[in-house]
Amino acid sequence: MARLIEELKKLPGVGTKSAQRYAFHILRASDEDAAALADAVRGLKASLRLCSICNNVTDVDPCAYCASPLRNQRLVCVVEEPTSIAAVERTQAYQGVYHVLHGTLSPLHGVGPDQLRAGTLIGRVERGEVDEVILATSPTLEGEATASWLATALRGLSVRITRIATGVPAGSDIEYADEVTMARALEGRREV
Amino acid sequence: MARLIEELKKLPGVGTKSAQRYAFHILRASDEDAAALADAVRGLKASLRLCSICNNVTDVDPCAYCASPLRNQRLVCVVEEPTSIAAVERTQAYQGVYHVLHGTLSPLHGVGPDQLRAGTLIGRVERGEVDEVILATSPTLEGEATASWLATALRGLSVRITRIATGVPAGSDIEYADEVTMARALEGRREV
Repeated sequence: MARLIEELKKLPGVGTKSAQRYAFHILRASDEDAAALADAVRGLKASLRLCSICNNVTDVDPCAYCASPLRNQRLVCVVEEPTSIAAVERTQAYQGVYHVLHGTLSPLHGVGPDQLRAGTLIGRVERGEVDEVILATSPTLEGEATASWLATALRGLSVRITRIATGVPAGSDIEYADEVTMARALEGRREV
Repeated sequence: MARLIEELKKLPGVGTKSAQRYAFHILRASDEDAAALADAVRGLKASLRLCSICNNVTDVDPCAYCASPLRNQRLVCVVEEPTSIAAVERTQAYQGVYHVLHGTLSPLHGVGPDQLRAGTLIGRVERGEVDEVILATSPTLEGEATASWLATALRGLSVRITRIATGVPAGSDIEYADEVTMARALEGRREV
């Protein structure tokens, strides 16, 4: 029991109280339910891997995006984490594929260019397999540093490099925009 | 007393309770303080007017922006309200002047093009006094409709018409961007 509680406490946001509650729930559950949970945990690590093309988390390699004939394989959207893909997919407006870096440059946390998984992307661009790379890291300090590092790494190769727009969010009033966002919205203004 | 409370209740967000509290405060205040408040209220309406060039609220005509030799008088940022000017000024990155529409198109509320104060702007553009008009209405339904109406009204005149960028706000994570904002950020991506 104590071992299970210790293990459950490693989950994000789970403290001793929650871990005890979960452990007692499992204790009271049927043998089948407990076995199913144990199998699901073990199965996750056994069956999930990273796509060898784009580093997305997947159970088949290549992942569903990289294998899809409906997707433009020459348009690559670079994101920080597998979960960022959901943000782009929600738009239902993107028909290209992805590349997951699994992190951002962060010298303070010891994350340098070597810790980012950009190698396969650079390889694809070098082999002329990509028309456009969209840098869709977040407009945070670390996301901007990562985008700018990757843009430099790809410079000189024959590929179009673009960055998603920073600006006032749709539906919001410009009076509530912070000054950095407003400055970027002005700077990024487009001809109509 | 009842008359003062009635008048104070017309202020936004002030109910009977607050109005009573204000009225009793004024009752207890010195004669000078009460007279100063009354004069300030009367003085506001007597001294403030709209700039005859840009419609900004001002005590001198033309307003400080339109009269400034340090400002680029050929670059005009169109905003909805005088308060929106503060949002652009906070960036400390804008060196042009403004034009205040005093509202947005809103057919439901009976606001059509004739209710917006765009006449002096169109006149300035027609006389060739403006190089660029930046449409800085909010990226809301009504702000977008207003921007698109004004772009159409200015089309054909020799002026550059631009729209501020809609996108992910600076410093925020793309995972928290709503789908419309993310779609606009992708659509508005720029070459780096």
